[in-house]
Amino acid sequence: MQGRILSIQSHVSFGYVGGKAAVFPLQCLGFDVDVVNTVNFSNHSGYGRAGGSKVAAAELKAVFDGMHENELINPARILTGYIPGAEALSTIADIVQKLIDEDPSRIYLLDPVMGDAGRLYVAEDVIPVYQRMLHMATIITPNWFEVETLTETPLHDMGSLRCALRTLHTKYGVPHVVISSIPLSGWLATALPESVRPAAGSTEEHLLCITSSRCVDREDSERVASVVHARAVPLIPGYFSGVGDMFSALVLGHYDRMSASAATSHTPVSTATSWALARTHVVLQRTHEYSMSLPEDERQPSDDEKDRANPHPKTRRMRGRELRLVQSQDILRDETQPPELMPWTDFWMAIATTVVACIRAREWKTSNCKLMGQA
Amino acid sequence: MQGRILSIQSHVSFGYVGGKAAVFPLQCLGFDVDVVNTVNFSNHSGYGRAGGSKVAAAELKAVFDGMHENELINPARILTGYIPGAEALSTIADIVQKLIDEDPSRIYLLDPVMGDAGRLYVAEDVIPVYQRMLHMATIITPNWFEVETLTETPLHDMGSLRCALRTLHTKYGVPHVVISSIPLSGWLATALPESVRPAAGSTEEHLLCITSSRCVDREDSERVASVVHARAVPLIPGYFSGVGDMFSALVLGHYDRMSASAATSHTPVSTATSWALARTHVVLQRTHEYSMSLPEDERQPSDDEKDRANPHPKTRRMRGRELRLVQSQDILRDETQPPELMPWTDFWMAIATTVVACIRAREWKTSNCKLMGQA
Repeated sequence: MQGRILSIQSHVSFGYVGGKAAVFPLQCLGFDVDVVNTVNFSNHSGYGRAGGSKVAAAELKAVFDGMHENELINPARILTGYIPGAEALSTIADIVQKLIDEDPSRIYLLDPVMGDAGRLYVAEDVIPVYQRMLHMATIITPNWFEVETLTETPLHDMGSLRCALRTLHTKYGVPHVVISSIPLSGWLATALPESVRPAAGSTEEHLLCITSSRCVDREDSERVASVVHARAVPLIPGYFSGVGDMFSALVLGHYDRMSASAATSHTPVSTATSWALARTHVVLQRTHEYSMSLPEDERQPSDDEKDRANPHPKTRRMRGRELRLVQSQDILRDETQPPELMPWTDFWMAIATTVVACIRAREWKTSNCKLMGQA
Repeated sequence: MQGRILSIQSHVSFGYVGGKAAVFPLQCLGFDVDVVNTVNFSNHSGYGRAGGSKVAAAELKAVFDGMHENELINPARILTGYIPGAEALSTIADIVQKLIDEDPSRIYLLDPVMGDAGRLYVAEDVIPVYQRMLHMATIITPNWFEVETLTETPLHDMGSLRCALRTLHTKYGVPHVVISSIPLSGWLATALPESVRPAAGSTEEHLLCITSSRCVDREDSERVASVVHARAVPLIPGYFSGVGDMFSALVLGHYDRMSASAATSHTPVSTATSWALARTHVVLQRTHEYSMSLPEDERQPSDDEKDRANPHPKTRRMRGRELRLVQSQDILRDETQPPELMPWTDFWMAIATTVVACIRAREWKTSNCKLMGQA
């Protein structure tokens, strides 16, 4: 018996983003999932056109009031994803806060879905609401752009990356941060430990995933830093939707707070992320292979100008790249241990060489570290 | 590759009715399911209270328009369930009609969800809309009360049962009718063939399931009758919600129009129903066992008067009887052949002894029968 997960995110009739990408994998892992839809659309926004509407804050509240009156809200874990308006998000924030106040052992994975690759796709007033929600989360799964947005820190070197992580762990009190699908740019590839770095010349064919778990110095409990793990995965070409939603669900589904021990070099979240990464990679591989098997006009790229004149080639490409989730259920349920993320032991140690005002722990040693919330 | 199923029915955040009971089993069977929600409620109506609302006809249309514009409506199979208003149902009827006109090989399972045990739980003007939709269906899965309502025939003896089935097959042109969960009353138990009848004295501890597949006389193509199959399954005590929704989905998921041959005594729908019955039975058994393992105050029956004063014991009972669907995924995916339904060979042959005006084929022989749509 895996327990219940309350999932609050978007619904689309066709394809796999939001709840459609998250709920089935969690059910395959054995969880009962309570599904609250924040939008009801025909398809994801990548198609350029969609029918349906967002669910108003009052309607969301009515659904939760109904569950509450019937004593039906008792999740062991909470997952929030795409919630496009500040009013709806504030309503959800209140509900999650109440659930965590009631039982602080509840695990909350907050995926601050706001945008990607420099482009915001929610209203700007959503940002401060997410910033206020961060302190409730057990795990957050922002992408690179969302880390920059939440911390107001452009990421252009190791110093700014450390600064952003420290902001999330200390200012916002987030225990675990997972950043996936990071383009392996020059400075990041150079800074990577040997054990994580892809073979020379192939860094651009990889994406990086980092986890960072907050910990405190055993001797100086005021001093907060984190244990960082990383893994590079081969890049699968092309654009896929719903990958982040599926990945976050898999991190939450595989998270086991008891799984880390002093004997291993892993944290509960680095282990959960290794499962999520491996499963996500296979689903993407299968999706890629499927899309490559389609007739040429359903997969060849076309340019924006042509798409405006005739949107159908674009929608056909999109359709051919919907996640092969149902066809990958064997992998979602597979219990074979995946390769673990590797410790990035000198992530904070090398810090003395970088001038970053917001970092206090200048010679942090991970061996000295006690994970927050661990015995 | 199993293909796509378009599922149009209710959504509840908590528990398993409508789409929540239908979609996961179909996904386990390997189908991509396009999920259109006709209501968004916190929970099923059995709890007595719920938050949320029905989806307006215009909103449903907008979702389908969005899918249509993006060329995303291409299901091999269609499943419709609870659609509570006549306007919304008419909208869905138009959409399904168009899909079947486009490709008559599409398999459409229509579950005319209207009520149970003598009580209608949709608006009355929904009935004529369902009657108009029947001719589009490949399979319908009404319960006993819905058969009576659709055919306007109270079922009180074999004559009225034959009359109702004939009305569905001839007046409304339905190829396959599946009626499950029929209480085994005296006259029905008496009429059952030996091979189907439960041991003497135990009929009341069983429910009957009947399938009826329309066929035409090889010699007289004007003469239409049907091949009837049946099976009695042990009754599991207590009330469960969503069973019909899960059962209908499983019938559709297992339906294989090529599965019948002259060599076997089964029809495609009797075989599909045998799979659906066996899987449903195990899910109910597990749900029953789970509910019996709960603390006493969450399972003991209470009376209506006490429930009005304090609704919580009732909601706790309901909660403990939500289908153990996720916990039964091994069974949903199990490929072990279940026991087949048995042919009810004298269903129509015995007809000469009953005076039923609407029956023309007085000495129908199943051996003379050619299933509609079969080669």
